[in-house]
Parts: sequence; structure tokens; C-alpha cells
Amino acid sequence: MEVHLLPNERIDDLQRNGLRIIQDPKKFCFGIDAVLLAEFAAARAGDRVLDLGTGTGVIPLLMSSRTEAAFLAGLEIQEESAEMAERSVAMNSLTDRIRIVAGDIREADRYFAPASFDVVTCNPPYMNAGHGLVNPQDAKALARHEILCTLEDVCRAAGSLLRPGGRFYMVHRPARLAEIITTLQSFSLEPKRMRFVYPYIDREPNLVLVESVRGGRSGMRIDKPLIVYLEPGVYTEEIRRIYD
Amino acid sequence: MEVHLLPNERIDDLQRNGLRIIQDPKKFCFGIDAVLLAEFAAARAGDRVLDLGTGTGVIPLLMSSRTEAAFLAGLEIQEESAEMAERSVAMNSLTDRIRIVAGDIREADRYFAPASFDVVTCNPPYMNAGHGLVNPQDAKALARHEILCTLEDVCRAAGSLLRPGGRFYMVHRPARLAEIITTLQSFSLEPKRMRFVYPYIDREPNLVLVESVRGGRSGMRIDKPLIVYLEPGVYTEEIRRIYD
Repeated sequence: MEVHLLPNERIDDLQRNGLRIIQDPKKFCFGIDAVLLAEFAAARAGDRVLDLGTGTGVIPLLMSSRTEAAFLAGLEIQEESAEMAERSVAMNSLTDRIRIVAGDIREADRYFAPASFDVVTCNPPYMNAGHGLVNPQDAKALARHEILCTLEDVCRAAGSLLRPGGRFYMVHRPARLAEIITTLQSFSLEPKRMRFVYPYIDREPNLVLVESVRGGRSGMRIDKPLIVYLEPGVYTEEIRRIYD
Repeated sequence: MEVHLLPNERIDDLQRNGLRIIQDPKKFCFGIDAVLLAEFAAARAGDRVLDLGTGTGVIPLLMSSRTEAAFLAGLEIQEESAEMAERSVAMNSLTDRIRIVAGDIREADRYFAPASFDVVTCNPPYMNAGHGLVNPQDAKALARHEILCTLEDVCRAAGSLLRPGGRFYMVHRPARLAEIITTLQSFSLEPKRMRFVYPYIDREPNLVLVESVRGGRSGMRIDKPLIVYLEPGVYTEEIRRIYD
């Protein structure tokens, strides 16, 4: 298949079943957080999965390979990113399983029916919007700062689009953990499982993976620590296996 | 000094500055959770410290040695335990710094003035009271199950007795983390720092240490993992250092 690339775009190998993704390093390239979230999220055979703020579609692409989900949707507000994601889906011949929708998380109910997904995933902006110092045309800034959507927007959309008992998977910063838990609960999403990602065994965690269940009962499991590096530049065995 | 021991009681070495404690193995002996909490809790020179549900007084005893706190109080509802704690305080010649009070956490404001402590600590019962299967005369059961006080009782007392900006240190089960965070916040105690205790590097954590600040702003730090064992029966260097 012929692949159309815009200036600065390149094709990266996702190192999983031959999957490839179109990215523009001047805009935003996916990071380890997206890879870990796709690994953490569990979709069962036949599940309908939605990724909120999908960017270039890395999470639906990885989950299409990792799981037997029947259908994976990705919602992305930035039209250029959504269009890149669509081309990646086509390049991987996945148009029958993955659908990219250009649209706003805050209006997600315009695109999808309530309670119509078994699984929702989200790798949201981590940082508060702050004081308007961010260029709203800057794709990297929009992916990192809560300019176009907040934690509350994301949790509201997930709570509305998941069926009762459906699962919401999010990656975020541990610094916001208290707010994450209370915001999830305010939309009937009960945190049921978390995993902290420590860069090294003797460092503070810089990411937390959270699984919530719509209407779940209280009670949480915390997984064994996920440690990224054995030493600088050397991944642990678990990370090597995830990236394999 | 002559030490009076009741039947079944013994004197254990706390392995810190010659400190000793009276315990009755038929009732309740302190565990690693109390030791880790005393290590996690930071008291500054001159601080007034209160331990809620102090049992045999292990936390005030350890903190009297670890910190320069001016005054340490321990509140304990079980009269026999409080009386044992008093004898341990006297045995260690600490009656000028540590005061044990026999009383109920739910009526803590009868014994102490509001906002009169810089630091509050608590190693509360971890388990929901369940269905009345527990013998209310059983000291071990009372220490483990929320029969005489709940998480809410503990947080209410801490929020009331701490000065604004004062710090509350608690150890609990990760399974209840979501409830812990929302309960703390409901009494104006903002979780600011947490540390997960993993028995082994590849196991789920079985304890979480939580530092909250009365009236603190949101934003949390999570410490590096605390790992207890290198292999069965062999403590990690950090635990050996704490127990030293």
C-alpha cells in the first residue's frame, strides 16, 4: 500500500506484529507512558474499546495487536493528529477494527452512545493549564497541559461512555493521585487497581497506572512495582518484554 | 528500677538506645508496621506528638528516641494496654516526656485541646468490623478490626487535634487506599506523601504509609519503594538499618 507522508513525518516500527505508526517528531511522539498503558489495559475478546485523546492512535494500534477487542475507537480533538492516526490505521490494514474520530472529549456524547463501551483508555495531559503561557497551536503543549481537556473532562466522558462494570484505564502523574481518586469517584468510577512506575528501584515513581470500574465496589489492589531501568540505558527484564 | 510484670508479660528490647517494652504475647505484640510508621513520621525539635490507639506505647517510645519531640502522648482505649504502656514508659525513665492516657479516640477532645499537636500518628485497625464474629474482649481482635474505632474516627480525631499545618502519619492497607484518601480529605487532612511497603520487589505492597497535612494544598509525593525482604528471612539493607 502506498503511504502518504507530509513534510517532517516519518514511519516508526511499533515492534509488535509488524505494526507501524506515522509520527511527526516536531509535533508529538508517543512515550513509554502510552506503551505501559496499552500493556496495563485489559480488553477481552469481543470488547468495544475507546481511547480518549488518542493522538496519533498508538494505544488503539497496540491494543489491536495485544487483545482480541472487536472494535477500537480513538477520539482526538487535533485534526492533524486524527488524520495522521487514520493514515496509520489504513497503513496497517486495520480500518475494519479501528475507527478514528476527530472530536472533543467534552462533547464525546455527540459521537458515541452512552454506556456503549466495555473499556475506555486515556493518556491525558498531566499538567494543570497554568497561566496561559502555552501556545494553543502547539501539539506538544496540548498533549501535556490541560488546555483542551481536564482530568474532570476525561473522567466524566469515561463514566458516561462505559457500560456499568466497564473498565477505565488511565496513566497519570503520582503527584495528582489524591485528585485522581476523588475525581474518578465523583463519576462513579471506582479505582480498583493501580501500579506505580518507578524509573529505578531507589527512585520515586513518575507514573501511575489506574484501573477503575464503573459502579465498582470499594477495595483496591496495588500491583508489584514496575521498575523501568536496571541502570542508566539498561531496561529491566519486564520492560524489555513489554517492548519486545 | 524494679519492674512489675504480670503473668505472661515479658520485656522486649526495642534495639534502639537501650529502650525496652513490656508485651504480653497472648495479647498483642507490635509488628513491623509500627516500626515503619515510627520511622516514617517526622517530628521536629520541640514538637508535641500524639499517638492514637497507642497499644503498649511502642510508637511514642520509638519516636522519643528517633526525634527531638518535646512531648509525646499516647491514647489507648484498652485499660490493660494503657497500663502496660505506662509501666514501659516508667521503666525507660521517660515519664517526663511521654504521657499515656486511657481513653477513647472517639472522645479524644475530652482529653486534649483542639489544634494542640504538631504531629499525630496512628497504626489503626486495618479491617472492617465485619459481622460480629470477633470477641470484644480479645485485645488482638480489637487491634486489628474496626470494632472500637473506624478509619473515620481516627481521621476525625487527627483533624481536630492537629494545629493547621500539622502532620498526620498513618499506616494502613493499600486495599483501602481510595477510602483512606477520601476520608482524610473529608477532615481537611490533605495526603501529601505516601510510601508503599512491598514484602519483596516482585510482590504487591501489603502496607502503605501516608503523611497528610491539616489544611495542606493538593499535590502528593510518593517515595521510593520500601522493600522488606531480599529473600525469605533476609531483610533488605534499608530494613536492617531501621531495625538497627
